[in-house]
Amino acid sequence: MFTKETYIQRRQALKKQVGTGVVLLLGNEESGMNYAANTYHFRQDSSFLYFFALDKPSLAAVIDLDNNEEIIFGDELSIDDIVWVGTLESLKSQASREAGINQVQASQALKNYLAKIKKEGRAVHFLPPYRPENKLKLQDLLGVHPNESKQAASVKLIKAVVAQREIKSEEEIAEIEKAVLITNEMHLKAMKMAAPGLTEAEIAAAVTKIPLSYDTNLSFPVIATVKGEVLHNHHHHNTLKEGQFFLLDAGAETKLHYAGDMSRTYPVSAKFSARQKKIYTICLDAHEAAIKKCGPGVKYKDVHFTAATTIIKGLKQLGVMKGDETAAAQAGAHALFFQCGTGHQMGLDVHDMEDLGEQYVGYTEEEPKNTQLFGIKSLRMGKELKPGMVITIEPGIYFIPELIDMWKAENRFSEFISYDKVEEYRDFGGIRNEDDVLITKTGYKIFGGFVPKTIADIERYKAGESLEDIIASKKRALQT
Amino acid sequence: MFTKETYIQRRQALKKQVGTGVVLLLGNEESGMNYAANTYHFRQDSSFLYFFALDKPSLAAVIDLDNNEEIIFGDELSIDDIVWVGTLESLKSQASREAGINQVQASQALKNYLAKIKKEGRAVHFLPPYRPENKLKLQDLLGVHPNESKQAASVKLIKAVVAQREIKSEEEIAEIEKAVLITNEMHLKAMKMAAPGLTEAEIAAAVTKIPLSYDTNLSFPVIATVKGEVLHNHHHHNTLKEGQFFLLDAGAETKLHYAGDMSRTYPVSAKFSARQKKIYTICLDAHEAAIKKCGPGVKYKDVHFTAATTIIKGLKQLGVMKGDETAAAQAGAHALFFQCGTGHQMGLDVHDMEDLGEQYVGYTEEEPKNTQLFGIKSLRMGKELKPGMVITIEPGIYFIPELIDMWKAENRFSEFISYDKVEEYRDFGGIRNEDDVLITKTGYKIFGGFVPKTIADIERYKAGESLEDIIASKKRALQT
Repeated sequence: MFTKETYIQRRQALKKQVGTGVVLLLGNEESGMNYAANTYHFRQDSSFLYFFALDKPSLAAVIDLDNNEEIIFGDELSIDDIVWVGTLESLKSQASREAGINQVQASQALKNYLAKIKKEGRAVHFLPPYRPENKLKLQDLLGVHPNESKQAASVKLIKAVVAQREIKSEEEIAEIEKAVLITNEMHLKAMKMAAPGLTEAEIAAAVTKIPLSYDTNLSFPVIATVKGEVLHNHHHHNTLKEGQFFLLDAGAETKLHYAGDMSRTYPVSAKFSARQKKIYTICLDAHEAAIKKCGPGVKYKDVHFTAATTIIKGLKQLGVMKGDETAAAQAGAHALFFQCGTGHQMGLDVHDMEDLGEQYVGYTEEEPKNTQLFGIKSLRMGKELKPGMVITIEPGIYFIPELIDMWKAENRFSEFISYDKVEEYRDFGGIRNEDDVLITKTGYKIFGGFVPKTIADIERYKAGESLEDIIASKKRALQT
Repeated sequence: MFTKETYIQRRQALKKQVGTGVVLLLGNEESGMNYAANTYHFRQDSSFLYFFALDKPSLAAVIDLDNNEEIIFGDELSIDDIVWVGTLESLKSQASREAGINQVQASQALKNYLAKIKKEGRAVHFLPPYRPENKLKLQDLLGVHPNESKQAASVKLIKAVVAQREIKSEEEIAEIEKAVLITNEMHLKAMKMAAPGLTEAEIAAAVTKIPLSYDTNLSFPVIATVKGEVLHNHHHHNTLKEGQFFLLDAGAETKLHYAGDMSRTYPVSAKFSARQKKIYTICLDAHEAAIKKCGPGVKYKDVHFTAATTIIKGLKQLGVMKGDETAAAQAGAHALFFQCGTGHQMGLDVHDMEDLGEQYVGYTEEEPKNTQLFGIKSLRMGKELKPGMVITIEPGIYFIPELIDMWKAENRFSEFISYDKVEEYRDFGGIRNEDDVLITKTGYKIFGGFVPKTIADIERYKAGESLEDIIASKKRALQT
């Protein structure tokens, strides 16, 4: 259970880390789509949620570290507001009840408050803004130019927030489990539905309906596609056809905004074709090997290399790749097929803390992010795993015609890649499986329940067998 | 059919109206939810869509009126982009094909381009920005401070855009009909579903699924509530109970982003109670009377007063109101129960052109908006209706306890309101019906098909009768 004590303790820990000055966290505003009042669903900033709990727009919070004072800046509702949005608990009462903060001041008082801090020569620590309205606010409140506000953010605060948020508590782990269970349901629905003649949009709609039915939301825009080789494909205008793969990458967030994030790929037809089986098996092997590699003390970079070498090994057996596996992986030759990273941290954000900067979230000063090498530059994390971290494992194999043509023309990595053989898979598309993994003291644990991913299980589930029957027969098989 | 000629003609008409200088229209950007890359669904600016067709982020367009030159500013995809978002048609080709514009320049060229215009002493006309990123851009491009950019917008351009966009063409009317037909389906689904034990969220999810299935979107956030008295209630956490009303206000937009917008209110139970029938009948009478009042040359303000006096008349029969109906309506006494306006224009925006300012969209210089009188200050439009205009008609009756208490304490309008009788309905809630109406040369036309709204039709539909049977028996009744 998240109580006000949860948030008091979180702020207590933050205060210790940051030390002196004033911490300023800006909540998010409502975002207008085509005019100010026609808003997207409200999403509070995750660090604001983590430390201050309050899930409503137009708030800011400060912690005066030198005087141990905490204030929420925000406005109470007027009678006009009540007509439009109903009676709500007062901000003052909510701040006290949910966050354990008893000081609430009007929004307009913040500017003078911060002017005073600056006059005293004290530091104001803020996080890098990602929303334009908060860039505007930082300009107005602190005179920081919008083009400079990311650079002006407090590295001390960023590091303190990352250190806290990346280790999930028992309550947070339970909340992520809830998110992944809803996410499981979304994937089971799509796997059952996917069939020739249906549109991607119809599946995406059915998948989206599930978190909305629980009065919660998607954790990111649904990827529901027969063109899995396009990594972030948010268009849903294709119709599913026999012989294609269908890829769903989708997740829910809970009411407290903890995320789930899963991917599954399966044939539109009832069965995998022989060619589909070959590549799918390699991709699933990489996924399983990477998961098994997870544990405390292991560098995520090595989890990624496990996935990469497994893919190379498999592609060698097909004749698509050749040469020494480790050398090929170190050179980045697999990036023709596996262009992205193996995964990312997950928590209040599906890519947890991505707004705080990959260098701080995924890397260390000793081993900074490699921003040059194609393939590796998209690896969001390299650093050592610790108990309480939550990560995704999602290696994929993608045949991208434009990329194949480019590399082939350059004859890039021809010691590792058999371009003639690659052509046989040019129109294959792209596939991945993704699960969410908790790092425990002794190893790892996969979140959520059973969603078929072996070829046999997928074919049985698509043929109409119940999950219970599939699980029961898997257990029987283990006993014999 | 919308072809590039459609857009060429629209710009031609705009050029004539604005005359000299340079028109600058900023498209919208992707909007990050909890970090920059986790985006809400993209929604292009409606005026940008109207004149430049291009439905993608990070574009700007200029029309040099003095030199009859049109340029799109935007960037082509890199190979890295292609890996993530797939191969797309080049911007240059798309601009030519969809918008009939052959000049495309890189985004970064826009700043110098505008600097040159300013140096020449020519006016740059822009619309009032509603998105913070466009306020930032105007600051960067033109040196307009974000707090001043709304004021600095070109009234000449605003008026020209409104004059064009508010008269819908045949193609636009056909597109709105499509939007309303999808919207009909959403309302029929909810009406059939609504029953004790279901949650508001489950209905909202089923309603949302419908436009998504057609690979399109909602035109605004769904209002699905048993607390209809809260006018813009986007929470869906209640469970439906016997004896309550359920109110759905929801609409779809088409792929070209034309909106539909309807409301229906009906009992959660199978039948209306006697008390529900009384208020519902008044509300439906007001809706029907307001629709019948619509036609070319009629002021929308008078449509609103027709709705208001119909409500007053009905409430007088119940003993809730008293005195002269016209006097009560002119004084605004009905605003205790009918706090908002009767409706608004609808088109590419569900509240069409709301970003351009209500004064320009809904009123005239001769008869400006009354911003003082409660009730009337929420009327979005007062001006004369013209053929080709599309408006919504959605009068409602809302019992808001906080407002009743406030007015009663002040004894406000006690010559028109019987506060003792009001108390009998204190917990009644709030209801409305809403349809979308086209103003024709001779009168009006309601968009879309049949969605039950009389008490008899709603009860029959909820009891499981088919729409076809209900319509057929209505036709038979008309013939006898």
